[in-house]
Amino acid sequence: MEIIVQKYGGSSVADTTRIKSVAKRIKEKVNTGEAVVVVVSAMGDSTDKLLGLAHSVAKNPDARELDLLLSTGEMISCSLIAMALQEIDIDAISMDGAQAGIRTDEAFGEASIISLDPSHILKQLASGKVVIVAGFQGVTEDLSTTTLGRGASDLTAVALAASLKATCCEVYTDVEGIYTADPRMVTNASKISEIGYEEMLELASYGAKMQPRSIELAARYNVPVLVASSTSNAEGTLIHDLSFKNKKDDQMEVRNKVSGVASEKGIARITVRSVPDTPGVAASIFEPLSKAGISVDTIVQNASAERLTDLSFTVSQDDTSNAISIVQKIATSIGAVEVVSDENLGNVSIVGTGMQNGTGFASTMFLALKNADVNIEMITTSQIRITCIVDESRVEDAVIALHDAFELDKG
Amino acid sequence: MEIIVQKYGGSSVADTTRIKSVAKRIKEKVNTGEAVVVVVSAMGDSTDKLLGLAHSVAKNPDARELDLLLSTGEMISCSLIAMALQEIDIDAISMDGAQAGIRTDEAFGEASIISLDPSHILKQLASGKVVIVAGFQGVTEDLSTTTLGRGASDLTAVALAASLKATCCEVYTDVEGIYTADPRMVTNASKISEIGYEEMLELASYGAKMQPRSIELAARYNVPVLVASSTSNAEGTLIHDLSFKNKKDDQMEVRNKVSGVASEKGIARITVRSVPDTPGVAASIFEPLSKAGISVDTIVQNASAERLTDLSFTVSQDDTSNAISIVQKIATSIGAVEVVSDENLGNVSIVGTGMQNGTGFASTMFLALKNADVNIEMITTSQIRITCIVDESRVEDAVIALHDAFELDKG
Repeated sequence: MEIIVQKYGGSSVADTTRIKSVAKRIKEKVNTGEAVVVVVSAMGDSTDKLLGLAHSVAKNPDARELDLLLSTGEMISCSLIAMALQEIDIDAISMDGAQAGIRTDEAFGEASIISLDPSHILKQLASGKVVIVAGFQGVTEDLSTTTLGRGASDLTAVALAASLKATCCEVYTDVEGIYTADPRMVTNASKISEIGYEEMLELASYGAKMQPRSIELAARYNVPVLVASSTSNAEGTLIHDLSFKNKKDDQMEVRNKVSGVASEKGIARITVRSVPDTPGVAASIFEPLSKAGISVDTIVQNASAERLTDLSFTVSQDDTSNAISIVQKIATSIGAVEVVSDENLGNVSIVGTGMQNGTGFASTMFLALKNADVNIEMITTSQIRITCIVDESRVEDAVIALHDAFELDKG
Repeated sequence: MEIIVQKYGGSSVADTTRIKSVAKRIKEKVNTGEAVVVVVSAMGDSTDKLLGLAHSVAKNPDARELDLLLSTGEMISCSLIAMALQEIDIDAISMDGAQAGIRTDEAFGEASIISLDPSHILKQLASGKVVIVAGFQGVTEDLSTTTLGRGASDLTAVALAASLKATCCEVYTDVEGIYTADPRMVTNASKISEIGYEEMLELASYGAKMQPRSIELAARYNVPVLVASSTSNAEGTLIHDLSFKNKKDDQMEVRNKVSGVASEKGIARITVRSVPDTPGVAASIFEPLSKAGISVDTIVQNASAERLTDLSFTVSQDDTSNAISIVQKIATSIGAVEVVSDENLGNVSIVGTGMQNGTGFASTMFLALKNADVNIEMITTSQIRITCIVDESRVEDAVIALHDAFELDKG
């Protein structure tokens, strides 16, 4: 039995008209003879509506209660998809997270999948049914409903594909695939036809549409993921293993180019000035931030004279005031001079495999930004990515300049 | 541990303002030191909205899918109540049907409770939490979500009260209790302070507010049920065992009066004329109706000359055309003369224990209807009820006349 997992996002099932057209697309796939499992997100803005209800009864709604509340959004869309399929003579059955066998830990609001028992789904597929699974949710040992975090219907789909040994996980969305840059910023951005997991992970972490955790999971289980449009039939982007061993065309050359430009806004930088450069200082700053649930992104520490150093890191703008007040206390206790912040930053990254082998990438990037009159505030690099923190108002210009410099419009 | 089960209906939790005031009422009960389990219905008209969605994707939505869809309404209200309680410093936890241990058969849309495992609820109560349970739902052996039929949150509440050996099941609604007649018809209707299960069952079956199945269950497990207002503090109606053995005041006299007047509209009568009076004829008519899911209420068969009889029965007006077409076929095959129907009927009943011992009840009833110029179409009786089928347009007048005749305004 060849199994395909399809995932439809919230905009693809925003109303009953779109639900009916999604049902037609599923029927086309079923007619090719494959066994189909479908994962759906909540309809359009229904998750936000449920959040609104929660916040009107409680200032800080309990995470466990919020999970039961939010999980209903996906149950509604998945039962409606099943009905719409039955209406066009396709036998279908819906399942919530519990029935689909998705067992999680108790980290309500951002639970991790502990195990996935696909036996119930396999049984229904074997009887010729299309199985519709409510995305974004699972259950704990004692059957408390959990959610897997925002955007986690992607994760549900990839986890099911891995567990069911599906031939492909198809993620249908309101864009036609992954682009070399955000098409809203760069008019001549081109669609990427295929990309490796690591590159996609860097792109996803820096702005492109796909939940990073789901890419990690796909990479671990080697699940091919196709990102494509839920309304057109245009070819999408295939995310899969591009390493040498997986190559089918015997192409020995290592890919050595920039795949795309990613960007983000809404970043703040916090700098702790003149920190005594002794062991344990970094931990004393970042452990309390982590405990407060503040996600720290880029961290830069400069070497400096006289055993004093400046330590900078970036956080989401929403977390700034909270982070500053935590760091301020620590700064005083460790004898740092002051804590300063800059709240109007963004970032721009180039992503590509083989980047570590060519120093030309960094210099081309910095030159392009200079020519576009974009000042670089901070720089960080990974094996397949170079990121520059820049002024928020300059992000678009930086993306356009980099897209041109690396000739990404040529695909 | 003294356990109280409270149930709040849809109008009591219609919006977040009412949810917050329900939370306050629950808090008052918690502060008396009792362990509290709360069952909630879906918010206001949310069940109808979900039904609307279902019917816009499918002409005849599948019963199983409909159940998963509709069950979300109660999950939403129960998680919101839990949040609202936590907001006012009451530790609370919500549970869907699966977590509450409510196992049902697979009769989607009208499932029966097979077993109820209260261990998870008891554990949470023991840890000092208020437990909020989503009404109206359960799960099958393989964790498919089921619903227990319209109005079945009452059933959930009574089943939990029985299983938890609760001291009382309190049903809060938008009326202050059970009345001697519908207050919208009879302005001087009076509230009944206590009533036995059988009488309440007859009243509930003939129009009063309370799901009949829940009364049956309460009677079987001897669960006292208090019906009261969710907004006022007025004393409600206690439904409990009024038989002699349960009497605490040593009152030997058998209660021998009319408790209330019930009424219904929307009834149609179907008559099969000149049916050969042979064994098996009734079965040949009513079995196909039952298989078609048509609920038949009153059945009357007159003795007649020459082994021919007229057989009449009542159904809901919605089922009339369907019932006629089924019966028409059978009538032809069994040699009946014709099938006729009257679609604009209603009924009016007097209910009270001890009625079988006094013939005066029936004659008082018939005389009162005659004086009010209400023609009686059919009569049926039970041990504690006398029902007359009358013209739909005469129901109000009949109720008023009977309420007066039995002096029910005196309570």
